[in-house]
Amino acid sequence: MRFFSDNAAAAHPKVIEAIAASNRLDTAYDGDGWSARLDRAFSDLFETDVRALWVTTGTAANCLALAALCPAYGAIVCHKDAHIENDEAGAPGFFTGGAKLMLVDGPGAKVTPDAIAAACDRVRKDVHQVQPAAISITNATEYGLAYSATEVAAVGALARERGLGLHMDGARFANAIVSSGASPADVTWRAGVDALSFGFVKNGGLNAEALILFKPELADAVAVRRKRAGHLLSKGRMLAAQILAMLENDLWLENARAANAAAQMLATAAPARLVYPVEANEVFLKVSAEEAAGLRAQGFDFYDWGVGEIRLVTSWDQQGTEVERLAAAIAAL
Amino acid sequence: MRFFSDNAAAAHPKVIEAIAASNRLDTAYDGDGWSARLDRAFSDLFETDVRALWVTTGTAANCLALAALCPAYGAIVCHKDAHIENDEAGAPGFFTGGAKLMLVDGPGAKVTPDAIAAACDRVRKDVHQVQPAAISITNATEYGLAYSATEVAAVGALARERGLGLHMDGARFANAIVSSGASPADVTWRAGVDALSFGFVKNGGLNAEALILFKPELADAVAVRRKRAGHLLSKGRMLAAQILAMLENDLWLENARAANAAAQMLATAAPARLVYPVEANEVFLKVSAEEAAGLRAQGFDFYDWGVGEIRLVTSWDQQGTEVERLAAAIAAL
Amino acid sequence: MRFFSDNAAAAHPKVIEAIAASNRLDTAYDGDGWSARLDRAFSDLFETDVRALWVTTGTAANCLALAALCPAYGAIVCHKDAHIENDEAGAPGFFTGGAKLMLVDGPGAKVTPDAIAAACDRVRKDVHQVQPAAISITNATEYGLAYSATEVAAVGALARERGLGLHMDGARFANAIVSSGASPADVTWRAGVDALSFGFVKNGGLNAEALILFKPELADAVAVRRKRAGHLLSKGRMLAAQILAMLENDLWLENARAANAAAQMLATAAPARLVYPVEANEVFLKVSAEEAAGLRAQGFDFYDWGVGEIRLVTSWDQQGTEVERLAAAIAAL
Amino acid sequence: MRFFSDNAAAAHPKVIEAIAASNRLDTAYDGDGWSARLDRAFSDLFETDVRALWVTTGTAANCLALAALCPAYGAIVCHKDAHIENDEAGAPGFFTGGAKLMLVDGPGAKVTPDAIAAACDRVRKDVHQVQPAAISITNATEYGLAYSATEVAAVGALARERGLGLHMDGARFANAIVSSGASPADVTWRAGVDALSFGFVKNGGLNAEALILFKPELADAVAVRRKRAGHLLSKGRMLAAQILAMLENDLWLENARAANAAAQMLATAAPARLVYPVEANEVFLKVSAEEAAGLRAQGFDFYDWGVGEIRLVTSWDQQGTEVERLAAAIAAL
Repeated sequence: MRFFSDNAAAAHPKVIEAIAASNRLDTAYDGDGWSARLDRAFSDLFETDVRALWVTTGTAANCLALAALCPAYGAIVCHKDAHIENDEAGAPGFFTGGAKLMLVDGPGAKVTPDAIAAACDRVRKDVHQVQPAAISITNATEYGLAYSATEVAAVGALARERGLGLHMDGARFANAIVSSGASPADVTWRAGVDALSFGFVKNGGLNAEALILFKPELADAVAVRRKRAGHLLSKGRMLAAQILAMLENDLWLENARAANAAAQMLATAAPARLVYPVEANEVFLKVSAEEAAGLRAQGFDFYDWGVGEIRLVTSWDQQGTEVERLAAAIAAL
Repeated sequence: MRFFSDNAAAAHPKVIEAIAASNRLDTAYDGDGWSARLDRAFSDLFETDVRALWVTTGTAANCLALAALCPAYGAIVCHKDAHIENDEAGAPGFFTGGAKLMLVDGPGAKVTPDAIAAACDRVRKDVHQVQPAAISITNATEYGLAYSATEVAAVGALARERGLGLHMDGARFANAIVSSGASPADVTWRAGVDALSFGFVKNGGLNAEALILFKPELADAVAVRRKRAGHLLSKGRMLAAQILAMLENDLWLENARAANAAAQMLATAAPARLVYPVEANEVFLKVSAEEAAGLRAQGFDFYDWGVGEIRLVTSWDQQGTEVERLAAAIAAL
Repeated sequence: MRFFSDNAAAAHPKVIEAIAASNRLDTAYDGDGWSARLDRAFSDLFETDVRALWVTTGTAANCLALAALCPAYGAIVCHKDAHIENDEAGAPGFFTGGAKLMLVDGPGAKVTPDAIAAACDRVRKDVHQVQPAAISITNATEYGLAYSATEVAAVGALARERGLGLHMDGARFANAIVSSGASPADVTWRAGVDALSFGFVKNGGLNAEALILFKPELADAVAVRRKRAGHLLSKGRMLAAQILAMLENDLWLENARAANAAAQMLATAAPARLVYPVEANEVFLKVSAEEAAGLRAQGFDFYDWGVGEIRLVTSWDQQGTEVERLAAAIAAL
Repeated sequence: MRFFSDNAAAAHPKVIEAIAASNRLDTAYDGDGWSARLDRAFSDLFETDVRALWVTTGTAANCLALAALCPAYGAIVCHKDAHIENDEAGAPGFFTGGAKLMLVDGPGAKVTPDAIAAACDRVRKDVHQVQPAAISITNATEYGLAYSATEVAAVGALARERGLGLHMDGARFANAIVSSGASPADVTWRAGVDALSFGFVKNGGLNAEALILFKPELADAVAVRRKRAGHLLSKGRMLAAQILAMLENDLWLENARAANAAAQMLATAAPARLVYPVEANEVFLKVSAEEAAGLRAQGFDFYDWGVGEIRLVTSWDQQGTEVERLAAAIAAL
């Protein structure tokens, strides 16, 4: 019973169906009928005109966005535990041409305006030090916390004040939206977000993520960079179709609700062990090495997350029984 | 009736089936059971130990290979009509960190040892001029010609003599193999090829290509670069499964035979109009603007290819009737 | 007697004096009193407000300018014989992050609007092909031709019409100005030039070139890139002092006149052998291998320049006697 | 009276003389007689065969070395206060093509094997995290501490054990050597250093630094990168001549001794205020804001270095009187 990560789950059957349904001749790349519907679909969802481009990975979405917001000689402020810092093999440096990540700290991988301001203020305003050009926040964070619209707006206000671009890594955007109850618009562009990596793969998609540009004028250059990075698939319709299937009837929200609910069930089993509040589909627990071994002996797979802590991630398709059994096992520790 | 390109065709039903069949929980990225079988499958096919990595586009395959074979300060010799020069948005420069393409000419986009040697000999051996580090050839070429094993071996001998890496862009490798009758081994590593972009997408795949490394020691760094370029998909098993489906029972050859046969039917219709011999699934015809308009009026879609020439590309799934009708229409011009 | 190149000549004594005179404590980098005078000095010379940055090489000046005018995913149109294409080790690709040079042809390494337009028109307007973003011309050209203000203005008009930046490599700008009689303003910004690499080293400087930005708003980012490329010297005052010495009393023009006059003396010796008109300080002659050997036997050093041609470059300090002897030797061939 | 930095001091008169003496025609770039002597001169100094390349800045020396030791997808371990991290505008990212700096901490900007090992051990050995490829240490450190040969050897042993390259930023190498009494060989290659940025500009040079490669096989590619970065000056003999002048009669040691002695005089004035032991030519003092203002009122210029601390840097040419006056002023605080 795997609680390693949501990124290895199966794709939702409707996604597979959508792929099969789009499996007929059409124009290549993103000239097809499915891709053509993305801008409209996301503009409706976000209540403003956006440009939406499919890509196959969150790393590609994140780094294409960052390259649009930060020059090669600039810096991107992010949390020290951010995925772009720790788990993308230096991709931000590759896509931007050498930009630097400027790390800040904060509980639960959440980034606050104060932390950003302090980091920026430490930079001398001269040519010797790399100047910040953008901020990247992750929502839900790497520790499963959801930003409120107010929190993002505070970061956004700082970004505007300092002339910095603002990117949101939304690998688990759906889980965050379900958790915070914020409208997609309020927690993104209305709060100052310029670009959003809208994740689907961890939430029932197969291999399609969406990069949402709230500044449509950025889109043409991003489209060029997408091609240049080898990310313009010739049968793009099968990516677009996946995304449209996820949006249809709010499947993306339905899946996220299922994953979040599973996480809540685990959280409820041992509230005293929680390292962070559970606001999305990740549960971090204080568990001794012996206890962890005990859980594994019962067939549960998960990552250790530092000394004396474990990470449990629930997925849209996690069997109720599995989750119940794990909750019981945790409660029984 | 579309004869624009083979890259927009539907995926083969067995590919879709394979995706669906692999749509269950497994280890993420390339840690799954399907990905684990690729090295073996391609090592069997090529009769030597290779490393095989899935990627989603030919551009990614080509440029990851080039980055492995050419330093940022080197040059890659290729044909002036090569896909990497004309249709990849400068991706070789991006992946390598600024390497240069050194262009040679030759009929039918075929690259000869003489042309390569002449280009290299024009370079002064000093630090002011960019020194060649690799060669890239396309098989089948951008004009639909297939290299014989002997021809590749001549290029390979020159590459070894001059200390250059050798890459083969095999976006239509299957069509070339079917046409030349060469064994995959003979036309690649036995002829000196270090890395092959083995295309599936134009031949019935959905979104999986294979990068074959005949120097297995290159693979670890390529795997890092793949991740760094955002090309390490989390549900990679659905790419590996596609490729395995294409290899099973030689589906890749069956599909290529169908496409090549369709091209031959068109070629036979008007041999005097052929710009190049038809050796794969592309047909270049001398056709006046009026004649082209006439064909289009009958419902046939295709690209003009310079003045007075058109390009027709056949696909694995091209309806016999469609091809017969186009052949008849050409014959009737 | 060396006619290899003007880049190996001695520096003018006044330049050495200026270095010695600036050899006292001052603020580091470009915060010193000499550097502070550059903007004003060049603004006066060019009759408009410019920003002027010292660098130590023409390659640095050229490529910092190109990085300011062309994104990593763009192309720079230049002559196939341009220094940036042939003699800078791929530096444009390095400084821009992978931009491409789009080569045009034309007699004497001169670039015409027609050639540029034709090159640009061959590019499909899609994401698959690298789109032109800038033009770079060399004045005097690599074959010693000087652009008239009208010629540059024609290129400049095209640049504006197509939205392209315009850079002038002026490694031998002084020689061109002396030859064409154009005002520095007329042949640069009034003709549409955005950035000029203003060469001094080939003309009596030691190791200081000036990068002139006619769009002052480009300067701050260029200054950052200069530092980032390791080109911000801590004792920059000794570069600025060199440049100021060259500008004082028009030493730069005086030196160029001397070099150009020497070239004219050589040209006059054998007008029928000239490959190009001699408009600066380079002389290209049709000379057989035997004749070249004969000249060398008399102690003259120079480069062969293709089959049956030689290149002779004169310097500001070339001894009258040396030049007279070479002229006589040529006449006597 | 300026105690800001040693990088703004005048060049030593013998350096200016050497420039003037080399100011005559010779082969361009590094083909001249002076440049040709560098390898030998440094091989003698270091008691082993080295390759030595001149460059004009420490940033260029550092980053060319790092690009030789670390691939674009690797990481360089260095102190969080290292010059390459804080004062080179992201140049390491530019020269390497996007490599990352992996920061460690430690008193006085000194890097220990334990700190390096701990940082490396935190990196998962997979493609998602950037793997360390090189270490860079600064000697003397950014806080004026000199490494002993034993200390460097401990770092070098770790580097070899982990397969990491080892670079030493020796912007103040002379001051460190004078202080530690170590032989240049013992504190570099015998201790495992692969490449050394040997600084001269802070020590009486004008604009020439030396990049010393203890692995000569690295030199050819470094020479190409030097050109590609615009750092191959055409009159390189005037850089080589500077360096040779500094080496002659151990002028580099004489200058460093003078600067170190001045620092010792300051240190002795207020031992209780020292933040770090004074081992080179930098003095960090605990001084209140009022005291600092008092010193400035007496005409002394220097940087604040964090709250309640100031940095005083002495130069080779610092007037005895100036230093004595400052020492007295500090003692009188």
